[in-house]
Amino acid sequence: MSDAPPAAPASSEAPQGEAPSKNALKKAQKEKEKAEKKAAAKARELADRTKKDAADAEDVSKDSYGELPLTGSKEFKPTGIARVSLDDVADNVDKEITFRCWVENARVQSAKLAFLNLRQNLSTIQAVIAASDKLSKQMVKFCGTVSTESTIVVTGLVKEAPEPIKSASIQDFEIHIKKLFIEVKAEVPLPLQVDDAERPLPAETAAEEEQKEEGGERPLVSLNTRLNNRTLDLRAKINQSIFVVKSGVCAIFQEFLSKKGFTLVQTPKILGAASEGGANVFELKYFDRQAYLAQSPQFYKQMLIASRFQKVMEIGPVFRAENSNTARHLTEFTGLDLEMEFQEHYHEVMGVLEDLMLFIFKELNVRYKRETDLIRGVYHVDEFKLPESGNVPRIPFTEGIKMLRDAGEELGDYDDLTTPQEKHLGRLVLEKYNSDFYVLDQFPLAIRPAYTMPSPHDPKLSNSYDMFMRGQEICSGAQRIHNSELLSKQMREHDPPIDPNGAGTKDYVDCFRYGCPPHAGGGFGLERIVQFWLGLPNIRMCSLFPRDPQRVVP
Amino acid sequence: MSDAPPAAPASSEAPQGEAPSKNALKKAQKEKEKAEKKAAAKARELADRTKKDAADAEDVSKDSYGELPLTGSKEFKPTGIARVSLDDVADNVDKEITFRCWVENARVQSAKLAFLNLRQNLSTIQAVIAASDKLSKQMVKFCGTVSTESTIVVTGLVKEAPEPIKSASIQDFEIHIKKLFIEVKAEVPLPLQVDDAERPLPAETAAEEEQKEEGGERPLVSLNTRLNNRTLDLRAKINQSIFVVKSGVCAIFQEFLSKKGFTLVQTPKILGAASEGGANVFELKYFDRQAYLAQSPQFYKQMLIASRFQKVMEIGPVFRAENSNTARHLTEFTGLDLEMEFQEHYHEVMGVLEDLMLFIFKELNVRYKRETDLIRGVYHVDEFKLPESGNVPRIPFTEGIKMLRDAGEELGDYDDLTTPQEKHLGRLVLEKYNSDFYVLDQFPLAIRPAYTMPSPHDPKLSNSYDMFMRGQEICSGAQRIHNSELLSKQMREHDPPIDPNGAGTKDYVDCFRYGCPPHAGGGFGLERIVQFWLGLPNIRMCSLFPRDPQRVVP
Repeated sequence: MSDAPPAAPASSEAPQGEAPSKNALKKAQKEKEKAEKKAAAKARELADRTKKDAADAEDVSKDSYGELPLTGSKEFKPTGIARVSLDDVADNVDKEITFRCWVENARVQSAKLAFLNLRQNLSTIQAVIAASDKLSKQMVKFCGTVSTESTIVVTGLVKEAPEPIKSASIQDFEIHIKKLFIEVKAEVPLPLQVDDAERPLPAETAAEEEQKEEGGERPLVSLNTRLNNRTLDLRAKINQSIFVVKSGVCAIFQEFLSKKGFTLVQTPKILGAASEGGANVFELKYFDRQAYLAQSPQFYKQMLIASRFQKVMEIGPVFRAENSNTARHLTEFTGLDLEMEFQEHYHEVMGVLEDLMLFIFKELNVRYKRETDLIRGVYHVDEFKLPESGNVPRIPFTEGIKMLRDAGEELGDYDDLTTPQEKHLGRLVLEKYNSDFYVLDQFPLAIRPAYTMPSPHDPKLSNSYDMFMRGQEICSGAQRIHNSELLSKQMREHDPPIDPNGAGTKDYVDCFRYGCPPHAGGGFGLERIVQFWLGLPNIRMCSLFPRDPQRVVP
Repeated sequence: MSDAPPAAPASSEAPQGEAPSKNALKKAQKEKEKAEKKAAAKARELADRTKKDAADAEDVSKDSYGELPLTGSKEFKPTGIARVSLDDVADNVDKEITFRCWVENARVQSAKLAFLNLRQNLSTIQAVIAASDKLSKQMVKFCGTVSTESTIVVTGLVKEAPEPIKSASIQDFEIHIKKLFIEVKAEVPLPLQVDDAERPLPAETAAEEEQKEEGGERPLVSLNTRLNNRTLDLRAKINQSIFVVKSGVCAIFQEFLSKKGFTLVQTPKILGAASEGGANVFELKYFDRQAYLAQSPQFYKQMLIASRFQKVMEIGPVFRAENSNTARHLTEFTGLDLEMEFQEHYHEVMGVLEDLMLFIFKELNVRYKRETDLIRGVYHVDEFKLPESGNVPRIPFTEGIKMLRDAGEELGDYDDLTTPQEKHLGRLVLEKYNSDFYVLDQFPLAIRPAYTMPSPHDPKLSNSYDMFMRGQEICSGAQRIHNSELLSKQMREHDPPIDPNGAGTKDYVDCFRYGCPPHAGGGFGLERIVQFWLGLPNIRMCSLFPRDPQRVVP
C-alpha cells in the first residue's frame, strides 16, 4: 500500500488564497473517492497476484503442461527429444515416450482423475492422468478439458492396460501422462463431429440428391454436410483409409506398368480446339482466344504411340462437362490411362490390362488390408471375388446380350447396355464365373468412338472392350485405327460426324500418315476402381474435394 | 482372241431391206476400229499378266516380303513367332530373329545389294540384303526403297559386323535380312526429318521469339517448326530421352516420398473461386457459373494437412495465365508438390526436400545415364555438380545479397532477385561451394505469399526458401501459417490485400481453426528440374505438347 496516492490531493483548480468553493469541495471529495477505489483495486490485484504466485508455487506440475507458443514464430530451442509413433508403443512398455497426437476426446472423471482418447492416423490409445503429490489437480483439470481435435504433445509412460480397452484401436496399452502441452488448440464447437463422419452415410446416399438427415437416436450426417466441412470430414479414419487406398492404387498401377516398360507422360489439359466430337467440354478463356479442357488424354496418348513411345501411361485429371448428377459421375476425376503398341493382336493389350488389375487387387489385399477391412466393415461390404483359376472372364458382348436375354431382359443385338442391365449382368457373371471382375469384348461399333478399329468378324462390331467391377464399368478401351485414311472415313461416317480436318482433329489424324504401329489401350476411372473395390455407395467419397454440376467448393 | 467381237456388227440403225447409207457405213467402220483396239488392249493385258505370272514364278523370295494388311482388320492368324528386342542381339549371334522396328533410312547400293538403318527406341542397327539364287533382286529392290519412318517386321540373321558400324548405335552386329514386311508405310515426303530433330536447336533458342532458320550447309530447324510437327519431332532420340528422364524424375520423386510415408493425392483443378490473390488465373465456364483453373495445389495440400494427412504429395498440372514468353515459362506445367507437418522446426522439411533432390540426382545418374549422356552430348552441357560433402549449401538470403554485392551487383536488403542476379548468384555459389544445387533460406516476407510464416529473427524476413539448379529456381517453399487469426491478419496486410472471408479463401482460412499442426512444404516445376538437370536451352523441350501464351496446339 506504499504506492497509494495522497488521500486529498491539492486541487489545481482552487483559486489561490481563497477558501475552496462548494463545487471545488465536491470535486475534491469525488477525486478522493476515485483515488481510494483505485487504491483498493490495486490492493486486490496485488493480493490476487500473491495468491496466484502462491498457487503456482503450490502447483508442482506447472512446468509440465500448458500452451506452446505458435511454432515458428519464436526463436527455436530444440528439445532434442525424439517423437515416437503410436504404432511402436509395444516396444516401449514401462518407458517414457514423447509423441504428437490429437485429441479425440478428453473427460474429467473426478478432481483427481481424467481420461483422454488420443489419435495418430488410424491408431488411437487411451491416456490417463491422476493427481498425486507429484502431479497437481490443476494439471489433471487442464488435461481433462483439452478441446476435441486439438493437436498436443504428450510425454507419458507406456503401461500395459489392466484389461483390453475397447474404445481404442490399441487395446493392450495405455499412456500415463507426465507432460501435456497444447500445440494447436481447436476452437469449440466444431462444425462437424469427426465421430459422426466415421459412421456410414444414410442409405439413400447412392441416389442422386441431397439426403434428408434421418436415422436412429443420433441422425446420420448427410453427404452434403460432410462435404461442406470436408477438412473435418476427412479426419475420419474411414476417409483417411479411402485415400490411402487411392494413393496405393496409383502406386501399384505405376509399379506394374513401369516394370513393363511404360513411360509416365503428362499430356496437355488445355486444348486449342475441342476434340472427340466437342460435346461435354468445358470452355476456357485463353488470353485473347477460346480454349477447352481435355476430356481425356486419348488423342495425345495415341499421338505419342505415333511418336514411337511404344508404351505410355498417364495419371491425370479428366474433365467432363456432363450434367450427370449420379452416384458414379464427377465432372473432374482422375484418369489412369495407358496406351501401347502391340505385335499381332489387340488381345495382347487386353491381357496386360487384366494382369494389371489382378496385380492391383492382389497388392491391395496385401498392402492395404487394414484400411480395406476398416472401410468395408463400416458399410458391411462383401469381399471382392476373383476367379480362382486366375483367368479373368472374357465375355464377348454378344454372349453378354444372350445371358441377359436368358435372364429376361429385352434388348437388341447391337444395343448399348443401360446401367441397370450392366449391374444385372454383373450378378449373372458373379453367379456363373464367381468373379466380381470381368471383361466384355467386341462391342458394337456404333456405340464406340470413331477411332475404334472395326472387328474383322462382323463389321457391326469392333475391337473394343470394357472392364467391370461389381457390375459397373471401370475401364473402356479398344484397338485404335492407326491408318489415317480409314480413320478419316470412320470419322465422317460417325454419328455425329467428325471433321477429320477440323482444328481439334487434323494433327491427330495426320500423325497416322507416318508409320504409326498398331496399338490399343484403355482409360480407367481411378475413383471408380476405389469405389467398387471398397463397395462404397457414392463416388464423391473417393474424391478429396469432389466436383459435380452442383459443387465446386470447397 | 477368241473373245473378240464380230468385226462388223449389224447396225440397228440401218433401215431394213435397204442398202446401208453412207453414214451407217462410216459408223460401222468406226465401231470395227474400236473393237479392234479393245481386242488389242485385251491381248496386251493378257500378255502382261502372263509375263507377271512368269516373273512371280521366278521370284524365289515372293513370300518373304511385301505389305501386310491393316492389323486388326482381318481375321487373326498368329505367327507364333516371338519378337526380339534389338538390345538382345548380342545373345543371338548367328541366329535368326524376328523383330519390329522402323526405318531410319533405306538405300539401294546396286541391283543386288541394299542397306537399311533400323531403329527401336534408342537403338539402331544396320541391316543388309544381298541378292542370290535364294533371294531375288525384286526383294532387294523392295527392301532398299522402303520409305523412311515406315514400321516393318524383319526376320534376319544376326551376324558379327566385319568392322564397327559407325552409323549405328549397335556397332558390332548387323542383320542379314531374310524376310521384310511393311506393317505400316510412312507417306513421302515427311513434313520434318527426324534426323533434323536430332540436331541441336539454333543457339538463340533460349531467347523469347521464334528463331530464323540459319546454320551451316543444312539449316537448323527452329523450335517452332519442330513443335508444329511434334509427333515427328518426338521420334528423335534426344527427345525420347528427355521424356524418359522426365518419367524417371516422377518415379524417383514418388519412390523417395512413399518410403517417407507420403500419401499421393489429387486436388481439384477446377475451383469455384479464384484464390491466391486472383491474378494470372484462367477463367472457365462451369455450367451456369464461372470457375477457375488452379494455379497450384497450395491451399488444398495445406487443407489436407489440416485434415491430418500428415504428409502429402501431388504430381499434377498447374495452370498460369501469365503472359510470359520466356525460355523458362509455360502456361501449363507439371507441379511436383509436397506438404508435411513437422515436429519442431521447418528446417526438418527443408532437409527432406534436400534429401529428395539429392536422391533424384543420384538415381538419375544411375538409372538414366544413357539418356542423360545422349542429351548433354548434343548440347555440350557440363556435368551437374553436387557437393562432395553431401551437404547442400543452405545460404541465408541476406548472405546471398552480400555475395552479389561483393561481386558488384547493386540491390537492397529486402529486394527480390532478378533472373540475371539469380544466375549470377548461381555462378558465385558454384565457385564457392562447387555445387550446382543449393538453397536460399529466410526470404524477405514482403516478396512471399501471404500465408508465409514470418521469421522469428527479423519480422521483415520469413521462414521460406527457394531451391536452385544451375542458378535457376526450381522450387519455392515455406513454413505456412497454421493459425487462422495470424493468417487473416497477414492476408489483410498483404500487398495486394486478400480478403480472408472471400469465396476462394474462407474454407482455407477456417480449416486452421481446428487444430492444424505446424507444417511446411514446397512446389517444384517438373519441367524445370528436367531442363536444368540436362542443361537444355528451352523449357518447351521438356513438355510433350507445350503451352505458352502463343501456343495451344497441337
